[in-house]
Amino acid sequence: MENNRVKVEIITIGDEILIGQIVDTNSAWMAIELNNAGFELAQISSVHDNANQIVESLDFALQRADIVLFTGGIGPTNDDITKQTLTRYFDTKLIFNVSVLENIQYQFSKRPNFVINELTKLQAMVPENCTVIQNTVGTAPITWFEKEGKVIVSMPGVPYEMKQAMRAEIIPRLQKQFKTPVILHKTVQVYGFPESILALKISDWENELPEFINLAYLPNSGIVKLRLSGILDNMLSLEFVMNQQIDLLSQILGNAIVAYEDIPLEQVIGNLLLDQGKIVATAESCTGGNIAHLFTSIPGSSDFYKGSVVAYANDIKINVLQVSIDDLELYGAVSQCVVDQMANGVRRLMNTDYAIATSGIAGPGGGTAEKPVGTVWISACSAETTISKEYHFGLLRDQNIQRATQAALLLLKEII
Amino acid sequence: MENNRVKVEIITIGDEILIGQIVDTNSAWMAIELNNAGFELAQISSVHDNANQIVESLDFALQRADIVLFTGGIGPTNDDITKQTLTRYFDTKLIFNVSVLENIQYQFSKRPNFVINELTKLQAMVPENCTVIQNTVGTAPITWFEKEGKVIVSMPGVPYEMKQAMRAEIIPRLQKQFKTPVILHKTVQVYGFPESILALKISDWENELPEFINLAYLPNSGIVKLRLSGILDNMLSLEFVMNQQIDLLSQILGNAIVAYEDIPLEQVIGNLLLDQGKIVATAESCTGGNIAHLFTSIPGSSDFYKGSVVAYANDIKINVLQVSIDDLELYGAVSQCVVDQMANGVRRLMNTDYAIATSGIAGPGGGTAEKPVGTVWISACSAETTISKEYHFGLLRDQNIQRATQAALLLLKEII
Repeated sequence: MENNRVKVEIITIGDEILIGQIVDTNSAWMAIELNNAGFELAQISSVHDNANQIVESLDFALQRADIVLFTGGIGPTNDDITKQTLTRYFDTKLIFNVSVLENIQYQFSKRPNFVINELTKLQAMVPENCTVIQNTVGTAPITWFEKEGKVIVSMPGVPYEMKQAMRAEIIPRLQKQFKTPVILHKTVQVYGFPESILALKISDWENELPEFINLAYLPNSGIVKLRLSGILDNMLSLEFVMNQQIDLLSQILGNAIVAYEDIPLEQVIGNLLLDQGKIVATAESCTGGNIAHLFTSIPGSSDFYKGSVVAYANDIKINVLQVSIDDLELYGAVSQCVVDQMANGVRRLMNTDYAIATSGIAGPGGGTAEKPVGTVWISACSAETTISKEYHFGLLRDQNIQRATQAALLLLKEII
Repeated sequence: MENNRVKVEIITIGDEILIGQIVDTNSAWMAIELNNAGFELAQISSVHDNANQIVESLDFALQRADIVLFTGGIGPTNDDITKQTLTRYFDTKLIFNVSVLENIQYQFSKRPNFVINELTKLQAMVPENCTVIQNTVGTAPITWFEKEGKVIVSMPGVPYEMKQAMRAEIIPRLQKQFKTPVILHKTVQVYGFPESILALKISDWENELPEFINLAYLPNSGIVKLRLSGILDNMLSLEFVMNQQIDLLSQILGNAIVAYEDIPLEQVIGNLLLDQGKIVATAESCTGGNIAHLFTSIPGSSDFYKGSVVAYANDIKINVLQVSIDDLELYGAVSQCVVDQMANGVRRLMNTDYAIATSGIAGPGGGTAEKPVGTVWISACSAETTISKEYHFGLLRDQNIQRATQAALLLLKEII
């Protein structure tokens, strides 16, 4: 904190966060964008729609920060008081702004059922001392204030309105007004080592990193993301040095590196399949469609993903996936024998190059002494090869579903 | 804010939130629990692992709040400085606490590979003036301080450790020390009206609500949750009056009320099916397994949910779900005819009482002039009845998947 980087504070305004009605995801998004743009986030605060509290927190923030970004509290209804509060704070008055009214009319023209009323028109009243930034995807204008070399911006709390304004206008304007260093983040995803072992394995490399590059370990269900953050004046030099360091790292870790980008694992797999022109299908028992859901969340996934049989009941495993009823009785649904048949069954049924299958006890019920909650068998296959592994996760249902999904994707990666 | 309720502030400590590495979901959870326990949350702040900033924000919070809750910054590594900072703040010193060491030894005994080192032992050093609350699911102790009638608590940022400490110890102790009113929340979920129309429909009822009951409208993809929050001294009277009001509401809204609890829609459907002893299956194209994922996220869902065919490719619709190839060519995959066949196909294949099917263009690609991105057909069927509807959602893939999922569950509800 005691450095000379340009500091930003975010103040979110609105009762809904303070009663737990919504989780504040705006601030995390803004934090990433601001960090990437070279700013340092000093503090995030959430306050009520309350004039005293808004003013107090603004004064408090201006003691530390060069820039204060308000989100929320600028809708047309009575409970939203940010605009009035800032007008009094700057000892100015509200004036009519014709371009805001024109924007409101334009926004409403796209929705035939919406009629402009008196409340809507009031949104065209803005503090006299502010610079208006048009809200291109909503009606409440963004207002930009300056005070003794510092900048205060008030913007909507609606996520897509906030994001649009931040990307298109606010960050570019801030970068013009304040001198920020070049920041570059690169992420390398590593599979197969716990964080502590990985740290030991790459400690020599880590110790030799130039001091303008920081390293963070971000472990997440079997994968550790290594994030390198570099700060320098010159983008070309920074990129050159970062790539050099990543080359050295890849010499140490080899194919334990899953990806050189910060993208989700299903996208890593999807890209591999697209490169090879191959198609995958899934047969899911304990993951219950979650693998299918992740694959199909990717735009264009129909080019590498064909479908899934969510075989939650045993008779689906038998009738649809052609699992042998004898094996099912002899070994149980959570077994290598059954999960291998599920994988090969769906591969044949859907006529794909690869398939993965999961069968396990997600919990909280269904565990036995022999196969406790958290036991999961996963199989990945092609026409030539079938590999399968047993896993022992924890007691929490949601976590077991997530970890089994992750493990299934990683197992598939082993045979692609 | 200017009332005499007991006020709490949350201060989360740690760089990871301020660089956007994690979203602060702890605070929203704590906000709900604190509100339910009768406290009012005045502010939430996220600050760096920085002594000056921690002290400044504590002083600032104590100007308004009776209780300040810190989360995070109490791990064994060097970057965590909350304990040292509070020790200096209270002008006290660290002393060894044997019960904390015993707890650490107990926690480690459950994990055979973990060895207690010097850093771990340092966690048994606590500020002399604090009350120690044992961390029953981790090693860092919770420390409780009092200052001029106000309470300051420092607890871990690890979500399950924080939750355990809040529920088992911190909230009960705070309720003992501070006088809080009885608070009761009840939620009624309504389907079929936009928020503004619903507000008009129940305006007489809303105007007649006793002033100790507040009403909030929480719209979410087709459903509006009406949340009644009552504050009174007496739980029995409060509950009586709240139930009376909900009875009146149900006379107005009838079967537009989807649920009288704040539970997700898939759980509402699951409960209905369990009551009837009926089973459902799904055939998912554009929702890509998301309906299956939601159903199977519910513990015990195998009692009402049998499985899904995620038919992302057309040949799966034909070969697995027995959709007519001629109809598929004539009407296209996104059509009433095909989606009806998908629903009935999976119902027969999986031998269930009900089935739902989805087929649509989630985007961003695949749209045409006739069937733009966001067009979705959904069908729900039993052996006797098939109903289907066409929907037009928006342009965003994730949102289309979510809204189609919600719509499919609601359509199923119509025939159960």
